[in-house]
Amino acid sequence: MQALKERIQNEGKNLGGGILKVDSFINHQVDPQLMYLCGRELARRFKYVGATKVLTAEISGIAPALTTALHLGLPVVYARKHKPITMPDQIYLTLSPSHTKGGTVELIVSPEYLSGGERVLIIDDFLATGATILGLVRLAHTAGSEVVGIGTLIEKVFEGGRQNLSRLLNIPVESLACITSMDNGQIVFAD
Amino acid sequence: MQALKERIQNEGKNLGGGILKVDSFINHQVDPQLMYLCGRELARRFKYVGATKVLTAEISGIAPALTTALHLGLPVVYARKHKPITMPDQIYLTLSPSHTKGGTVELIVSPEYLSGGERVLIIDDFLATGATILGLVRLAHTAGSEVVGIGTLIEKVFEGGRQNLSRLLNIPVESLACITSMDNGQIVFAD
Repeated sequence: MQALKERIQNEGKNLGGGILKVDSFINHQVDPQLMYLCGRELARRFKYVGATKVLTAEISGIAPALTTALHLGLPVVYARKHKPITMPDQIYLTLSPSHTKGGTVELIVSPEYLSGGERVLIIDDFLATGATILGLVRLAHTAGSEVVGIGTLIEKVFEGGRQNLSRLLNIPVESLACITSMDNGQIVFAD
Repeated sequence: MQALKERIQNEGKNLGGGILKVDSFINHQVDPQLMYLCGRELARRFKYVGATKVLTAEISGIAPALTTALHLGLPVVYARKHKPITMPDQIYLTLSPSHTKGGTVELIVSPEYLSGGERVLIIDDFLATGATILGLVRLAHTAGSEVVGIGTLIEKVFEGGRQNLSRLLNIPVESLACITSMDNGQIVFAD
């Protein structure tokens, strides 16, 4: 998506080690208009998959998941990383390696809002190694739901997430901006 | 706002101890259409304050802040509770007592996205004791910005947040659903 790519080119910062800082419009400050357009585009790409629910992970997945779900007319569930007191004792929980913090984080969903028979569209800000998204896939499968699509704003192609997701046969994976290299301080897009 | 009140009445759960569970449409599962309407209404109420930025706290503030900011055409900054590696060393940090977790949580904003001279509209999901919102006010003031409005989805009037905020003279406080009592398992609205 051209508007997103331009924004990354203009404001994204390559911090080295494969870390892309997009804190001025996605990860700390958020541009709602851009998120609205990204959500509209993701909704367009996934309108044929028959999703019944959008699933994401707090925190940075919430904005793109919300705007995608708004355009698809679906509810969003965001997996929590800490169990709030409002959640029942019986939960779905998986561990996911944390790309930016080291160690693992918990991803928790209440069975109240992810039950069997849902057709789940997973939306997140980044596709890097795919670890978080595979965690969300495990949660959906544990709940007895099917994953029908995976969409992200930014894919760091060189981190191999798409290959790691390829074991999930026949699930479309869409990213709005694909970065093929961040070597030598550059940010190189796929096309 | 009638649509929000009806949703609370139909789906909200009074867990006792003043805890209102609205996990089916705000705090775990989110209804994007309802959030869009709430954001539109908050934007309508604050359109005259001349805000230049919306400020909220992760996690549950993000959805209403995003939709409010979308309607006002403003960027959103969400205060982080953990410093990400993309943030510079020099930050604005305040401690806020956690209503639902006990102890305190950190609220962190990067000076890159909250600088002096901004007119800040604070949006959050709940106004309870006002502790989190007062934390956001401290961050804004530390950055040299002015707070020009405070808006929330749900106000628990009996927890006194509005009085605690009243020391901030002349700042309008708006809540879309005001709950005056949760005694005896009920959820009683102000009007």
